[in-house]
Amino acid sequence: MALEGAEPRARRNGERQPCPFCPGQEHETPNETLAHRPPGSRPDGPGWLLRVVPNKYPAVHPDLDDRVCSMEGMLYLSNPGFGRSEVLIECPEHLSDPTALADDRFAAVFRAYRDRIRDMAADTRLAYVAVFKNLGAEAGASLGHTHSQIIALPVVPESIARELAGGEAFHARTGRCVFCDLLTRELAAAERVVARSENFLAVTAYAPRYAYELWVLPRRHTARYETITDAETHELAVLLKRVLVGLDRVLAEPAYNWFVHTAPLRSPELPHFHWHIEILPRTARPAGLEWGYGCFITTVSPEQAAAQLRRALPT
Amino acid sequence: MALEGAEPRARRNGERQPCPFCPGQEHETPNETLAHRPPGSRPDGPGWLLRVVPNKYPAVHPDLDDRVCSMEGMLYLSNPGFGRSEVLIECPEHLSDPTALADDRFAAVFRAYRDRIRDMAADTRLAYVAVFKNLGAEAGASLGHTHSQIIALPVVPESIARELAGGEAFHARTGRCVFCDLLTRELAAAERVVARSENFLAVTAYAPRYAYELWVLPRRHTARYETITDAETHELAVLLKRVLVGLDRVLAEPAYNWFVHTAPLRSPELPHFHWHIEILPRTARPAGLEWGYGCFITTVSPEQAAAQLRRALPT
Repeated sequence: MALEGAEPRARRNGERQPCPFCPGQEHETPNETLAHRPPGSRPDGPGWLLRVVPNKYPAVHPDLDDRVCSMEGMLYLSNPGFGRSEVLIECPEHLSDPTALADDRFAAVFRAYRDRIRDMAADTRLAYVAVFKNLGAEAGASLGHTHSQIIALPVVPESIARELAGGEAFHARTGRCVFCDLLTRELAAAERVVARSENFLAVTAYAPRYAYELWVLPRRHTARYETITDAETHELAVLLKRVLVGLDRVLAEPAYNWFVHTAPLRSPELPHFHWHIEILPRTARPAGLEWGYGCFITTVSPEQAAAQLRRALPT
Repeated sequence: MALEGAEPRARRNGERQPCPFCPGQEHETPNETLAHRPPGSRPDGPGWLLRVVPNKYPAVHPDLDDRVCSMEGMLYLSNPGFGRSEVLIECPEHLSDPTALADDRFAAVFRAYRDRIRDMAADTRLAYVAVFKNLGAEAGASLGHTHSQIIALPVVPESIARELAGGEAFHARTGRCVFCDLLTRELAAAERVVARSENFLAVTAYAPRYAYELWVLPRRHTARYETITDAETHELAVLLKRVLVGLDRVLAEPAYNWFVHTAPLRSPELPHFHWHIEILPRTARPAGLEWGYGCFITTVSPEQAAAQLRRALPT
């Protein structure tokens, strides 16, 4: 499995022992909803290579009634915490660093993202699937064993609604996808390009929240992550791994989050939205100006960050 | 000055020695723009009770040209970092805890907020003044000596622009100020009320980002913080101090930010906006769901938080 020589790296998680995500501890997690297993291996037993399970401490819960909604005056709207919370355990080995996975194993994570979104789309009570990773305690991870989270919600979350609205306004004005324009412009300017492959581009964000914020986009227009092919997940994984290794080298293994921004479930192919992955390393502590006013201060420009990352990429 | 018995409390700042905000270290900061001093005390020397100075490490700078603005395509807009960054040193004593200040000294902080906003309004290149406090390293403070920040910007920051737009939409629909409606509803429901005085109300936020998030609002409609009277700053300070002491007791002296949300500089009295102060204690670590999707998870309801805080208020 090409994990020889890979060393788990510390990002200071308070580790529970034994790790509930390790093989042999399957009884510590609810029954799996997806697993990559060799033929003959039993569900919820050892032998898996990747495993998705309902979160034991769910943010949202499938047993709540999605139809109840309370509205006080025109001000206060509340819904029960209906939804699904899952954890994607990325490998059986107790590794904290996803880049320690061989390319095909890392690609399997992005296939599993796609397959869970496709599966959840069948539940018409769900409107959106958030797929993200928290790496390191400072980025909100409570366990070190490398994992992602998949949270399906009955509403389109605020950040996505704003991106959709912004994309729609740009499209109405120009007839073009704002992300496609961004791709053209970034490839032409080159100064924020960190890495590229035939079908994907990784750039530092023009207006980052944290220094070294990265965006990875498919170069072809496509709104829905779940349309990704197996070959594309492999290409994406190879590119992303190079970028993450670069990030680890430049920032000495930072805590970070990545999150997939994709269209709402069961969307048609939208002309104004374009799925992408944002990577947010914790290079600062947001304070009053950020939380209070939405103004983010960074001390490294995206052009400097991209130049540093390019130099640090593995060959 | 009634500081007897007040103990500085640790919130784990990496302290520089000697503290550049302490009396005798005035040469460590740029020349003061405002100070509360007894008659005869010399500017930029000791003797002050409160002092506002340009930030030695400014986020925005007055010497940059505010008129230059670059726009690439319809995508990328950038401005030089024009503006003014100031630090308000709240007391000469090396205290980390603003609630250790006597009421009249704490009130002076809120008068100084007002006076700096009024002064900066004269510079028509400036559009907005952000006034906020970072307390504790986890909330972004780099020095322990209690201080606030005042940052004047040539643009209306994003969070304020959204609040203004939301308030305007509500007003267009209802003819009312959304914050006035909130005040009426909160006072009637009472369950999120933490403290009240004749002219101010402190409530836990209905949809908090962090558990125990608090809002303090004037009960009378007023869009512009800088219209506050001396008597009102005193009443606000007394109320806020009680609430902050409660917060310290319930959460064992958390790191927090507070920020003033007021109307843009030189606004008329807007019917759809209402100044207020938001207090954000660091009760969690925002992760992928928060940063990626704008969804915030809290484990204590605002009603529970308000009940705890009410019980913990000093008498």
